[in-house]
Amino acid sequence: MPPVPYERLDKNDVVLLVVDHQEGLYQLARDQDPTSFKNNILAHAALGKVFNLPTVLTTSEETGPNGPLPREVLEMHSNAPLIKRPGQVDAWDNADFKAAVKATGKKQVILAGITTDVCTAFLALSLRAEGYTVFANSDASGTFDTKTAQDANDRMRAAGVHVLSMFAVACELMRDWRATPGAPEMMPYFDRYLPQYGFLARAHDASLQGGTPSGL
Amino acid sequence: MPPVPYERLDKNDVVLLVVDHQEGLYQLARDQDPTSFKNNILAHAALGKVFNLPTVLTTSEETGPNGPLPREVLEMHSNAPLIKRPGQVDAWDNADFKAAVKATGKKQVILAGITTDVCTAFLALSLRAEGYTVFANSDASGTFDTKTAQDANDRMRAAGVHVLSMFAVACELMRDWRATPGAPEMMPYFDRYLPQYGFLARAHDASLQGGTPSGL
Amino acid sequence: MPPVPYERLDKNDVVLLVVDHQEGLYQLARDQDPTSFKNNILAHAALGKVFNLPTVLTTSEETGPNGPLPREVLEMHSNAPLIKRPGQVDAWDNADFKAAVKATGKKQVILAGITTDVCTAFLALSLRAEGYTVFANSDASGTFDTKTAQDANDRMRAAGVHVLSMFAVACELMRDWRATPGAPEMMPYFDRYLPQYGFLARAHDASLQGGTPSGL
Amino acid sequence: MPPVPYERLDKNDVVLLVVDHQEGLYQLARDQDPTSFKNNILAHAALGKVFNLPTVLTTSEETGPNGPLPREVLEMHSNAPLIKRPGQVDAWDNADFKAAVKATGKKQVILAGITTDVCTAFLALSLRAEGYTVFANSDASGTFDTKTAQDANDRMRAAGVHVLSMFAVACELMRDWRATPGAPEMMPYFDRYLPQYGFLARAHDASLQGGTPSGL
Amino acid sequence: MPPVPYERLDKNDVVLLVVDHQEGLYQLARDQDPTSFKNNILAHAALGKVFNLPTVLTTSEETGPNGPLPREVLEMHSNAPLIKRPGQVDAWDNADFKAAVKATGKKQVILAGITTDVCTAFLALSLRAEGYTVFANSDASGTFDTKTAQDANDRMRAAGVHVLSMFAVACELMRDWRATPGAPEMMPYFDRYLPQYGFLARAHDASLQGGTPSGL
Amino acid sequence: MPPVPYERLDKNDVVLLVVDHQEGLYQLARDQDPTSFKNNILAHAALGKVFNLPTVLTTSEETGPNGPLPREVLEMHSNAPLIKRPGQVDAWDNADFKAAVKATGKKQVILAGITTDVCTAFLALSLRAEGYTVFANSDASGTFDTKTAQDANDRMRAAGVHVLSMFAVACELMRDWRATPGAPEMMPYFDRYLPQYGFLARAHDASLQGGTPSGL
Amino acid sequence: MPPVPYERLDKNDVVLLVVDHQEGLYQLARDQDPTSFKNNILAHAALGKVFNLPTVLTTSEETGPNGPLPREVLEMHSNAPLIKRPGQVDAWDNADFKAAVKATGKKQVILAGITTDVCTAFLALSLRAEGYTVFANSDASGTFDTKTAQDANDRMRAAGVHVLSMFAVACELMRDWRATPGAPEMMPYFDRYLPQYGFLARAHDASLQGGTPSGL
Amino acid sequence: MPPVPYERLDKNDVVLLVVDHQEGLYQLARDQDPTSFKNNILAHAALGKVFNLPTVLTTSEETGPNGPLPREVLEMHSNAPLIKRPGQVDAWDNADFKAAVKATGKKQVILAGITTDVCTAFLALSLRAEGYTVFANSDASGTFDTKTAQDANDRMRAAGVHVLSMFAVACELMRDWRATPGAPEMMPYFDRYLPQYGFLARAHDASLQGGTPSGL
Repeated sequence: MPPVPYERLDKNDVVLLVVDHQEGLYQLARDQDPTSFKNNILAHAALGKVFNLPTVLTTSEETGPNGPLPREVLEMHSNAPLIKRPGQVDAWDNADFKAAVKATGKKQVILAGITTDVCTAFLALSLRAEGYTVFANSDASGTFDTKTAQDANDRMRAAGVHVLSMFAVACELMRDWRATPGAPEMMPYFDRYLPQYGFLARAHDASLQGGTPSGL
Repeated sequence: MPPVPYERLDKNDVVLLVVDHQEGLYQLARDQDPTSFKNNILAHAALGKVFNLPTVLTTSEETGPNGPLPREVLEMHSNAPLIKRPGQVDAWDNADFKAAVKATGKKQVILAGITTDVCTAFLALSLRAEGYTVFANSDASGTFDTKTAQDANDRMRAAGVHVLSMFAVACELMRDWRATPGAPEMMPYFDRYLPQYGFLARAHDASLQGGTPSGL
Repeated sequence: MPPVPYERLDKNDVVLLVVDHQEGLYQLARDQDPTSFKNNILAHAALGKVFNLPTVLTTSEETGPNGPLPREVLEMHSNAPLIKRPGQVDAWDNADFKAAVKATGKKQVILAGITTDVCTAFLALSLRAEGYTVFANSDASGTFDTKTAQDANDRMRAAGVHVLSMFAVACELMRDWRATPGAPEMMPYFDRYLPQYGFLARAHDASLQGGTPSGL
Repeated sequence: MPPVPYERLDKNDVVLLVVDHQEGLYQLARDQDPTSFKNNILAHAALGKVFNLPTVLTTSEETGPNGPLPREVLEMHSNAPLIKRPGQVDAWDNADFKAAVKATGKKQVILAGITTDVCTAFLALSLRAEGYTVFANSDASGTFDTKTAQDANDRMRAAGVHVLSMFAVACELMRDWRATPGAPEMMPYFDRYLPQYGFLARAHDASLQGGTPSGL
Repeated sequence: MPPVPYERLDKNDVVLLVVDHQEGLYQLARDQDPTSFKNNILAHAALGKVFNLPTVLTTSEETGPNGPLPREVLEMHSNAPLIKRPGQVDAWDNADFKAAVKATGKKQVILAGITTDVCTAFLALSLRAEGYTVFANSDASGTFDTKTAQDANDRMRAAGVHVLSMFAVACELMRDWRATPGAPEMMPYFDRYLPQYGFLARAHDASLQGGTPSGL
Repeated sequence: MPPVPYERLDKNDVVLLVVDHQEGLYQLARDQDPTSFKNNILAHAALGKVFNLPTVLTTSEETGPNGPLPREVLEMHSNAPLIKRPGQVDAWDNADFKAAVKATGKKQVILAGITTDVCTAFLALSLRAEGYTVFANSDASGTFDTKTAQDANDRMRAAGVHVLSMFAVACELMRDWRATPGAPEMMPYFDRYLPQYGFLARAHDASLQGGTPSGL
Repeated sequence: MPPVPYERLDKNDVVLLVVDHQEGLYQLARDQDPTSFKNNILAHAALGKVFNLPTVLTTSEETGPNGPLPREVLEMHSNAPLIKRPGQVDAWDNADFKAAVKATGKKQVILAGITTDVCTAFLALSLRAEGYTVFANSDASGTFDTKTAQDANDRMRAAGVHVLSMFAVACELMRDWRATPGAPEMMPYFDRYLPQYGFLARAHDASLQGGTPSGL
Repeated sequence: MPPVPYERLDKNDVVLLVVDHQEGLYQLARDQDPTSFKNNILAHAALGKVFNLPTVLTTSEETGPNGPLPREVLEMHSNAPLIKRPGQVDAWDNADFKAAVKATGKKQVILAGITTDVCTAFLALSLRAEGYTVFANSDASGTFDTKTAQDANDRMRAAGVHVLSMFAVACELMRDWRATPGAPEMMPYFDRYLPQYGFLARAHDASLQGGTPSGL
């Protein structure tokens, strides 16, 4: 079989999009456990912080019932452009948002949003039509039910969108634990957002300070 | 990967079809909760009302056991052509219905009906053969069981029909909350037909009138 | 086998309790389809209206995020005592609520609330401890997930609570279609809250040639 | 049916036990999503903090592979007795732990631990044999798989242990949002550990500061 | 283990009740395949015919949407009392129905109806309270969904009702193929209502008329 | 916990009943794979042969569509009483059958038949009413579907019938591989009716004759 | 609720029984993953070794197709009585086995075997009839399918047998990591038979020798 | 359909890669039973030993929480290059690892690792981009959950990776039981890592030494 090229995330050529992860809209996402989904929303935003990625935040009518972005997300990205869309559902229809994305000069996009079938999919499809390479962080998008999520993911894949987990996105971005960000930045990231890995590291570090042999 | 075009609903180039949502036939649709399905039938018709779309209603032998359309649907569309088909199963076989659709001059079609595998699918396949871009509102079509619904949706997709949820249809049509219809029209629409969103808005509005801090 | 007595709802000896069916708390109920659950909440309140039952409404901190009762419920019961509990989780701990229930002089209670495991169960257990015969309308209580709902229903049953569907509650109350309320009141009730029955009546009425009206 | 007494948590007569929620043992708990389970462990410990309950922490050989308690738990309970069991599996076999529990003078116990079938169940069974009223917070105990969890919960229930969710435990303890702890303490608690409720409150509070009507 | 008495259907001491098997109400029964359910309704009525059991038919407001009994049922029982209840939900509340049942002088009752949780269960519970031995033909009762059917069957069993299949009811009644009714009556019965048995008999009979040896 | 007596099959005090395992009726049994079920029917009959148990065969109207017993069963038991019931469904209603069973003087009964809910259950219930200890070989009874099988097994268990697998029946009867029957009789029995055990033995025996080491 | 006594394993009053864990019979056990089941068989035998429990091994016709015990089991217990039952299915019927068990003078028994429904259950029921306290290690018994395993476990529980996991058995026996056996013996035991715990210990010990901080 | 070439493992042209099978990372793999997964990790490494394949081991930051390779793996491959990657996530980014693989001169690669979606997939995709024929031993790769494993396997397959079981890999490599390695080497391999096959062989061999006929 001939070689197959490996399309790979490049932290120097990617922009992170946080799309309508609003505290009101969050209630509509019923295809995930609410505790995990909040965690995944914060983990998505934190990718921009930890990798120092150009990040564009956007909300839809946030003074209304959709509500604001979680304060944790806003605190992480206090300097990022936050495009408060006055009405456009597909963020690509908003000139400021489009300009903010284009201003980054990046060719790759990571995105996630609420709901998967509307906010994530409409934007992903618009970006693919524009020629971007699009990576959808599937852990951080939510919608009404599992069937709607699957249909929306399928619709995106059919347009060439890469649908990936948060862990795969983070590791493809990092590539090397010695890079910056590397272990000193990513271990706290995983401690916070991937606790099975975090507790592994914590127990390890604890054993470096006065640990006693197990008896093995 | 090269760009992939985004085929998108355009409220100025679309006709809404209400196909055999009759009160008798309704009893045959057992792939959805009856309460949700009635809600979805009304929500489908209401799309035409709220977006002021040219709408064509049709029934099959409505003085027989199939029964009439729900009075709520008729009241919404008292001026729309209602083609009472004397016998044709596929509405496209009825010359009046065909004429009514063609008279709108639209190139896109949104449709839903009972049953999914017969009334919706036959018409959708005929429309695709004729060159229309077809969007099937999957929430508003019902049939005997889930398997039949899936098979019918797959058959339509294979012919290039877009199978979408009501929410995706409504949002692709609206595009902008400031458009007309926009928030003042669509929020009452969602309050009625998507109560998880409606209650979000109600609670928000209530808090604008004498709400007290949560204690957070 | 010896006879077994039939414990039966008596519309003349029953009080209806609407417990924390608030528009904010509604978002926490994820063990039911949101459209059906809103319908079931309204159907519960409407039992009091249609049967002219003494009804006691109660909310928990309604100016906060829990939100108010749906306006549809309030409009139905504009003359009923609405005990806005300033803090008590178990409504029975609120002296006004307790007094309002006791003032009815009834020995049977129908109740439903959000969440099933807290607002419904705590009150039901307190009422059983007090000697009331308690009927929980299971269609109109919601909580975080199915397992929590089952555990809460089991806990209530273990204390002698009757856990019934809305239809069984309504029919045990009515007993006779000629009573008041009877067909003229209950058919519109079912048309609204049990649409599979309503559409049956509508189709019947549409066909009326020698039949008699349904009462709709 | 005769009245049935309601056995109810009393925050003035209860001791909270944190049993072997250690960072190493955490890896053994595979009957829950790891993100939710970490959240539930912290929520369990936080009950003691927010209700100012006498709390006893215990670990099993924590300098070995079992690891220490999470630092978040230790920080919450820096003044609580932490009984580092040098070997006893059933904490009740440890004289210091037993003394610490007895010193509280309480008759009710809330507990959770890893693993459910060993650390939680052995202690719960010993406490029941001693006459305590025992409430097991089922959300905060974890073990190898669902079947083992169910068997262990059944074994505890057979000995009269109450197996409850975190939300039911918290609300039975609080009883009144105006108590202390009440809204000002419990809303931040739920914001942290029950995010679907927290985001409800956040969106509410946001709308108190410049919110605009929804359009409804 | 000591002997256990066998409570057994006695065709000489039993009355058959056909309860609200009406053509309209039939649409509400969604816990069975519609084709099988019609078959089971006719099979239930035919038990009375083939065993010459005193049979009491009853309907609820049959000129309304509930509709009449299927003509097949009426033709089978043209001489049986048909109590058209003007309103009573629980047939036992209707004096004529009660009198008709009591007039049979029987101590055992076989019944089935639509819906299981209302029409079947209310009557069965009333009959048990009155001291009758009650056999519910579970194949011939239908309701909104499986859960409701199970709850209703459980509620009846808790009151001592026997919940049996049609085949078990028919065979306990017949007892002997030589009795009257016996083979000449029951084989056509099974041919009609239990086609797997009917086709066995047909193939058998075909081979008696011009059949040729199989070669076995 | 006090000792619990062990009720145990005794080959010297048991009669085997083959009930309506007829070639026509066999078509009705669809709760088992047809190949396995034929195997289990033969295995049941073979228990009588291999343990030299007094055996009573019975059929229901065997010249009709129910058909005869399989020739394999008849050949095994050419000397056993074969009570061709001219009509009785419950074999206990047949005086010859009853006499044949009583003539054995045994106090324990093993039985199986088609269908489980009628032929097996009616007889088992009659035997329990008469004071027999009854063991139902569940592998060798068949009926319309799994639910009917479960209900019938439950009904029998409620009357004190032991419902066991063929393997447990065979092993409780044999008790000792050196008894007669023992290995020389039972290994061929298992070879024929429990092929996973038979093939184990065959491979073992093959290796005794010219076997070559596996390479281990 | 009154106190409930805690029946607890006592390593000084217990005998371990290895029942027919033979290499041929092993093929019959298809209710467990074969790799896990071999592991569980070895873990069961190793309990006797590590706790120095009086252990009695028994096989059924081991020179036949049932095959010998695994060499790993034999090597662990080269000095234990190995009762090669010449024929008895229920080991309690073998005088030598009975004598060997009685000779230990213990009142508690831990057992496991193949198959669960025959070798384990028959012996467990006999031991309960004799007054022993019986603990069945459910992880180390196997049979034809899950249903048969469940039925057999239920039958044992009904006679007062405790059905427990290997981990619960091991921990109830050990009670204290400082006892003998304690950590130095049990950690290697768990490393071998509960690898998720073993790898936790290994990684811990590795970090004691040159581990470097995680970066947290 | 035209012929499809069979791309087949060739033991003379393949290199085995052991990727991050580290004792800490092992805890993250929750899509397999932990006992089976440890077995599968050892079986993967043992393929290199038994087929004398050039093998390259690699770890990621093994002095940190990821931990070392299991000592069993290290002992098998004490002479193989062990590339302790100081940071690269995708092993192909490590020059030493790349050189070690290239130095073997092989064109086929067998690999497995933790986690499937990161360590296995990234390397497999890089190898496919480089033109290697890649075989992923799916039994020996683990990750967070089943869905992530499926998505990662699909992603690899889309790039032409063969995803195979351990048994298929071993048999494609061996090809002939008479080859070297053949039966004398592979039977002990399967005895250890595929115990259902091993016990078959053991029982066979036992019967060669003093076995007695089964009685068949």
